Amino acid sequence: MFRVITLQQAHQEIEKQWRHPKKGWIRAEESVGKVLAKDVTARINFPPFDRAAMDGYAVRAEDTFEASEERPVVLRNLGLIKAGEITNRSIYPKTCMRVETGAPMPRKSNAVVPIEFTQEDEVVRVYRSVAVGENVIKKGSRLRKGEKIAEKNQEVSPQLVGAMIAGGVEEVLVFLPPKVGILSTGNELIGLGEKMRKGKIYDINGPMLSCAVKKLGCEAIFLGIAPDRTDILKKKIEEGLKTCDVLLITGGTSAGIGDLLPSSLSPIFHGLAIKPGKPTLFSMLRNKPVFGLPGNPLSAFFVFWELVAPHLMRMCGKQSEPKTVEAVLCQDLVSEKGKEEFIPVKLYREEQELKAKPLRMGSDAITVLRKADGYLDVPLEVERIRAGEKVEVRLFAS
Amino acid sequence: MFRVITLQQAHQEIEKQWRHPKKGWIRAEESVGKVLAKDVTARINFPPFDRAAMDGYAVRAEDTFEASEERPVVLRNLGLIKAGEITNRSIYPKTCMRVETGAPMPRKSNAVVPIEFTQEDEVVRVYRSVAVGENVIKKGSRLRKGEKIAEKNQEVSPQLVGAMIAGGVEEVLVFLPPKVGILSTGNELIGLGEKMRKGKIYDINGPMLSCAVKKLGCEAIFLGIAPDRTDILKKKIEEGLKTCDVLLITGGTSAGIGDLLPSSLSPIFHGLAIKPGKPTLFSMLRNKPVFGLPGNPLSAFFVFWELVAPHLMRMCGKQSEPKTVEAVLCQDLVSEKGKEEFIPVKLYREEQELKAKPLRMGSDAITVLRKADGYLDVPLEVERIRAGEKVEVRLFAS
Repeated sequence: MFRVITLQQAHQEIEKQWRHPKKGWIRAEESVGKVLAKDVTARINFPPFDRAAMDGYAVRAEDTFEASEERPVVLRNLGLIKAGEITNRSIYPKTCMRVETGAPMPRKSNAVVPIEFTQEDEVVRVYRSVAVGENVIKKGSRLRKGEKIAEKNQEVSPQLVGAMIAGGVEEVLVFLPPKVGILSTGNELIGLGEKMRKGKIYDINGPMLSCAVKKLGCEAIFLGIAPDRTDILKKKIEEGLKTCDVLLITGGTSAGIGDLLPSSLSPIFHGLAIKPGKPTLFSMLRNKPVFGLPGNPLSAFFVFWELVAPHLMRMCGKQSEPKTVEAVLCQDLVSEKGKEEFIPVKLYREEQELKAKPLRMGSDAITVLRKADGYLDVPLEVERIRAGEKVEVRLFAS
Repeated sequence: MFRVITLQQAHQEIEKQWRHPKKGWIRAEESVGKVLAKDVTARINFPPFDRAAMDGYAVRAEDTFEASEERPVVLRNLGLIKAGEITNRSIYPKTCMRVETGAPMPRKSNAVVPIEFTQEDEVVRVYRSVAVGENVIKKGSRLRKGEKIAEKNQEVSPQLVGAMIAGGVEEVLVFLPPKVGILSTGNELIGLGEKMRKGKIYDINGPMLSCAVKKLGCEAIFLGIAPDRTDILKKKIEEGLKTCDVLLITGGTSAGIGDLLPSSLSPIFHGLAIKPGKPTLFSMLRNKPVFGLPGNPLSAFFVFWELVAPHLMRMCGKQSEPKTVEAVLCQDLVSEKGKEEFIPVKLYREEQELKAKPLRMGSDAITVLRKADGYLDVPLEVERIRAGEKVEVRLFAS
């Protein structure tokens, strides 16, 4: 019934079908955490005009060259320029203007004498010389119009937003995180908050996968719980395909009486050589990727992380590199040959050594993960790992 | 004018004033990334009843003990239980019921024979024996009612949400991230998107700090741009204090003509022995922390990360440990004695070595950070670091 393929083959099949990340223009302030799909260049100079770097007097530097504490230079004060204001006056020889930090420099001035080296009454006495350009931030000195601010494929940080605004950049082209529709199926499922009835269990996959999708920076749209009826399932899938870029459907993928999904979709593959997670399928409907994930929550969790998440991240323009630590296995482990097995582990320190304790349970036992720090990825061909061997543990991102 | 204190002293002053994180009950599905303020225990058993672990026949195990491929045991079929359904029937000797994966086990049954070891016509033939409990997930076996699911101070992950839902947990008590109001001040500021006019510059701090606050998981409320007028500033601050838990006000904190902030607040401290970032102040108004940050964006950025962010994270129940790497300084560096200096650096590899190149610019030059991977924290007493010395680089979280 299943055409079982390996996880690696599955990734290749998915990539073949689903290639193009969506791009879109968004406001610079909304772009943090997203990845640029195009270089960003400055639209204006920063600063856009020569600015006073401190409070003081805008002067012609040459007028101050003779100044000293003993023999101040005397200048005529033409007035005050506050930050945000402008003036039409020019600084002619032996004149100056009071400027606030950030104020535009008046014409023909080329330096600022800090206020602490001056004294003002009817005239301004300058007790220190300044060089040309001293205490002035020249127009475009921090960023020139047309200069590159950031590169394609760079993730936007708050400070980069700062630099983009300095360059007058209002909108940036980013990879748009996909909208991911999540549909839970199964007659036995009720939503958390509904009254518990005999024979029913709470839907775990819907909320759990919604959380995981959001954590990756994608939009999660929970489409609800569908009963095991082909007509309702089809309608829900059609609805989901209208608003979402990707669909995740849990349950209904194995071979039971109520498992209607494979017949409703036309799977490109159905069955993965992984444990847990075998009853997984993938289909393209209306040119959109649709994943059928196992109903068992622990299986759904691993299939999401190992199969779905890397593609969602790729759509966001991001790399997915699992964080790992090396640890020593604390007990023998037997794994089924021909299946890549994911085994939750608890990490602990013993005699200076980081040790990994396997936490194995049924594929329904999502509860086991509350105690797990990460998991082992036991390759297809490995049948046994002995206590004391070094293993690589993939950490759950906190 | 300034009572200049060290960064460490400033942190102590802030902690003295502002101690209690806010807690609140939120829905389990909304708690990912937040930190629990109370242990979480299961409200129901998981599973809530004995469930069939596979598709097959619910039997009394003892009826199958004699079964073999050659000599199947014959049982009478009492009907079908689908997942989500219940039955009133009991399994008496030599009878069985067809069960779907996840269906509740009928009374007096204690094992499931997988479908592939059976044959059904008028009767059900069982070709393999099963042990008591085989292929049955016992009520409460994954999680017992009252069992601890998660601990206070644990950050909630998607898989933990899964475990909490399994335990019927609808709401959890978490540390509520503070609402942070952000107010930009300065006559020279206009909002990005407004028409640029001579003498004006775009407000960088407002959007940049809003982004940084959101990235920490807090709520950012941008209160807009206020001109340098005490009456308007006071009104804006009053407004902000009504809706926000913390206020960040940039600009107006140094000693210029237009710097009205210190007179509007009653600072607990004003002036930090750091560079950039000296004109920083802290006040408690209506029992809420109010930070006055420098108007220069690079200063505001460092003051935010070094002074404000650790307290915001503490409010969220999180530790703030900067990620660091060791690198070799590529050029001599002179730092002002008596000031803790933050110097952006670019990291690069040369001859297998990770090297750090200082990127120094004025405190307005936020644009320098677009090229920086992190920064050095040069202590108060250090005046010089030589090329070739090892330095610790604090990485900007990507």
